[in-house]
Amino acid sequence: MRAVDIILKKRHGKPLSEEEIRFFVKGFVEGSIPDYQASALLMAVCFTGMTGGETAYLTSAMVDSGEKVDLSRIEGVKADKHSTGGVGDTTTLITAPLAAACGLRVAKMSGRGLGHTGGTLDKLESIPGFKTDLSMDEFVESVRTVGLSVIGQSKNLVPADKLLYEIRDVTGTVDSIPLIASSIMSKKIAAGSDVIVLDVKTGSGAFMESLEDAFALAKVMAGIGKTAGKKVAAVITDMNQPLGMAVGNALEVKEAVRVLKGQQGGPLKEVSLYLTANMLLAGNAASSLEEGLRLAGEALESGRGLQKLRDMISRQGGDPEVLENPGILPAAKYIIPVEAEEEGFIYSVNAREIGRSALITGVGRTRKEDRIDPAVGLVMKKRTGDRVEKGEIIAEFHVNNLKVFEEASRVFRNAVKISKEEPELRPLVLGTVTDEK
Amino acid sequence: MRAVDIILKKRHGKPLSEEEIRFFVKGFVEGSIPDYQASALLMAVCFTGMTGGETAYLTSAMVDSGEKVDLSRIEGVKADKHSTGGVGDTTTLITAPLAAACGLRVAKMSGRGLGHTGGTLDKLESIPGFKTDLSMDEFVESVRTVGLSVIGQSKNLVPADKLLYEIRDVTGTVDSIPLIASSIMSKKIAAGSDVIVLDVKTGSGAFMESLEDAFALAKVMAGIGKTAGKKVAAVITDMNQPLGMAVGNALEVKEAVRVLKGQQGGPLKEVSLYLTANMLLAGNAASSLEEGLRLAGEALESGRGLQKLRDMISRQGGDPEVLENPGILPAAKYIIPVEAEEEGFIYSVNAREIGRSALITGVGRTRKEDRIDPAVGLVMKKRTGDRVEKGEIIAEFHVNNLKVFEEASRVFRNAVKISKEEPELRPLVLGTVTDEK
Repeated sequence: MRAVDIILKKRHGKPLSEEEIRFFVKGFVEGSIPDYQASALLMAVCFTGMTGGETAYLTSAMVDSGEKVDLSRIEGVKADKHSTGGVGDTTTLITAPLAAACGLRVAKMSGRGLGHTGGTLDKLESIPGFKTDLSMDEFVESVRTVGLSVIGQSKNLVPADKLLYEIRDVTGTVDSIPLIASSIMSKKIAAGSDVIVLDVKTGSGAFMESLEDAFALAKVMAGIGKTAGKKVAAVITDMNQPLGMAVGNALEVKEAVRVLKGQQGGPLKEVSLYLTANMLLAGNAASSLEEGLRLAGEALESGRGLQKLRDMISRQGGDPEVLENPGILPAAKYIIPVEAEEEGFIYSVNAREIGRSALITGVGRTRKEDRIDPAVGLVMKKRTGDRVEKGEIIAEFHVNNLKVFEEASRVFRNAVKISKEEPELRPLVLGTVTDEK
Repeated sequence: MRAVDIILKKRHGKPLSEEEIRFFVKGFVEGSIPDYQASALLMAVCFTGMTGGETAYLTSAMVDSGEKVDLSRIEGVKADKHSTGGVGDTTTLITAPLAAACGLRVAKMSGRGLGHTGGTLDKLESIPGFKTDLSMDEFVESVRTVGLSVIGQSKNLVPADKLLYEIRDVTGTVDSIPLIASSIMSKKIAAGSDVIVLDVKTGSGAFMESLEDAFALAKVMAGIGKTAGKKVAAVITDMNQPLGMAVGNALEVKEAVRVLKGQQGGPLKEVSLYLTANMLLAGNAASSLEEGLRLAGEALESGRGLQKLRDMISRQGGDPEVLENPGILPAAKYIIPVEAEEEGFIYSVNAREIGRSALITGVGRTRKEDRIDPAVGLVMKKRTGDRVEKGEIIAEFHVNNLKVFEEASRVFRNAVKISKEEPELRPLVLGTVTDEK
C-alpha cells in the first residue's frame, strides 16, 4: 500500500477502505507518511468528501492513535456534552450540574477558547483555586463521588487529531464536514461516555454558518456515534447572536450562577434545559423529551443543580464561596457603558463580531501563547428584537485597559444593527438529529 | 501575505494575483513555505485549475527561481523543440539536425527517460564517447559553430520545477494541465531560445491520453509562450502506438540514422519533417508550412541533415563512425523474435504497454537510481493496420538476459491486439496550436 495511491484514489472521488484509512492515519502519526502527503489527502477530502462509512473509519483510526478514558469504575450512565463553539455559550456550566443532579454521571473534557469563541476551561479557571488538570484517577474518582467533573483534555487522547489539526490550520483544510465531524467525535468517543449530546451551533457566530451545513454536520456526527456504539443526540441551536448576555470568562461564570439560582431566564437558560433534557432522554433518565425538560427544570428550581456545581468546584480545589459572593471573582477596573446612537429595534447582532470585540478586551487568545484576562469582556443589555431609545445603554464593557475600549467598542457598534423595522426572530432550537433517524 | 490565505483563495476557485503566486513560489524554493503548504496548494489547483494568466505568472515565477541560459552570443534564430513524452519517439535526433541544416540554431536541453517514455539524453549516451554534460560555455559555442547541440538540463535552471515535481510525484498532483504546462514551459523559456516547437503527444502511450486534454495543454503552453515573448507552435501528434519501430536507446539511434540516410520512411520520418517545418515557419526560415516541409525534405535527401548530426556527435566527443558503421553501438547478446499467434490485422498497439515491455528489458529506469542498458529493447516489425499471418514475426526483442524476455514478451503480447477486423487509422498530426490562435 502506498500513500500516493490513497491520495490519488481520494482525488478521483473514490471511497477509501478501512484498511487504507488506518494505514494513512497510523503512518502519519508514526511519521512514516510525511506532512505533505497528509495535507494533499486532506485537501482532496475537502473537494471530494467522504462517505459516512469512511468518516466512521477515520474517526475510529484517530481514536486508536492514543489512549482511551476508562470510565468503567463509575456506576450509572456516563454522559458527555459538546458544543461546536459559540459566543456567550456557557451551557456546560449549567447543563453538566443539572444532568448530574438528575442522576447522570458527567465526565467532561473541555477545551480552551478558539478565535472568537470561548472555552469552558478558561471560564472555570477564573474561579479562585479551580484546577482543570486533574490526573485521570482524580477525574474518574470525582465523577464517581460528586457526579460530575470538567477537566482539560489529556495529551495522550487522540494524538492524531492534534497532529491533523495543526496541518489543517495552516493548509486551508479546516472547513470540511467529514474532517470536523471526525475531529469532534474522535475526542468524544475516546473520552469514554455512553451518551453524547452535541450542541451544533449555526449562524453568524458559529463555525457552521448555514443551517444546511449544521444539519449535515449533525447527521455525520450522529452516524459516527452510532457506528462506535454510542447514544448520540445532536441539537442544532441558534448562534446568530451571543447565547447569554455575558461574553468573558468570570462574567460568564457569574451569568451561569445566576441562571442556576433562578435569577435569570432567557435563551441561555432555555438552551441549557433543552440540552439537559436530551442528555436525560438519551441516557434513559427520562422517557420523553417533555419529562426530561420537567426533570431539568425541577433540578434547577430546587437548587440541586447549583449544589452540584458547588460540589464540583470544592472537589476541584475552587472556592465555592463564588456562588454566594461572585465579588471574589476577578473584576475589571473599568465598566464602561455603550449607548444606542439612535432609537429603533435591535435588528441584528453579529455574534462573530461580538466575540471579536470581546477578544480585543482580552478574553481569549489570538495566538496559542497569548495570556487571557479572566476579568474582562462585555455584557449585552439588549438582544435582537428589543426596542431601544437613543442614549439607552445597550452593553457594558469590562476592561482593565482603557486603550482597548475604543477598538473593542467600534467593532461592537458595527456588529449591532439598529433599525426602524422589527426583525423576524428564529427559534432557539432549530432541530435535533439522533442516531436513530 | 500568508500562505494559508493563498491556499484558501485557490481552494475557493479564485484566481491568484501575480504577487501571490510569486510570494508562494519564492517562499517554497527558499524554504519559508513548507512542503505541506505547497502540496495543499497543488491539490487545490488540481481541482479548481488556473486561468491562463495565473499559469503564465506561475511559469514566470518558476523561471525566475534560477539561472537563465544566455544565447545572445549566437547569431540567427535560436529554436528549441520539446516532446511531452512518447514511446519510440526519436524525433529530436532527426528534427534538430534538419532544422540546423536549414539555418536555424538549435540549442536543446533534453531529459532522461521517465517511466514508460524514453529520453534523448539516454539515447545519445549510447554513442561511444558522447558527452551530454558540456559546460554552458561549451554548449553555446557548439551551437554557434556547429548549429546545434543537445545537452542535459543544467541544475541551476528552474530549481522550482525540480522541487515542485518532487512533491507532485508523491502527492497525486502530477496530472494537472496548468502544472504540466508551467513545468514544461518554464524550462523551455529559461533555456533561452526564440522559437519553441512543442510536440504534444496524445493516445495510449502519452501522458495526455485524450485528444481534448492534449489540445487544452497545447493552448495553455502556447499562451504562456506568448506572454513570455516567445514564438510557439504546438503540434498535436498521435501516440496510440510507438512512433518509430525501435524502442531502446542504441536501437533508436540506429533508426534515426536510417531515417536521416533516407533508408526508412513512415511515421517517425513524417512527424520529424512536420516538426522541422513548424520550426522553420515559426523561425521565419520558411514563409509557409508547405515551404518548410519542402526545405526539410531537401535537407534530409541531400544528406545535409546527416552531416549536421555527424558534426554534433564529433563536437560533443562522440564517435561519428556510428553513422557509417552502426555496429559500433552497444548490441544485445540475444535477438529473439516474437511471432503472431493468429492471422489477421494488427488492430491496436498499446504504446504505454510497449514502453513498459521495453522497460522490462532494461531500456529505462523505474527508479531514479536505476542503471539503464543502452543495448536492449525491441523493434516492431508490424504496425497498426498491417496484415499478419500466423507465425509471422511481429517484433524482435534485444536482450542481454534471457530471464527478462518471458515477462517482457508477455506484456508485449497483451499490448498487441490482432483481429479479423481492419482498424480505422487516425492521422499522425491531429492539429497545431500557435500563439496567434
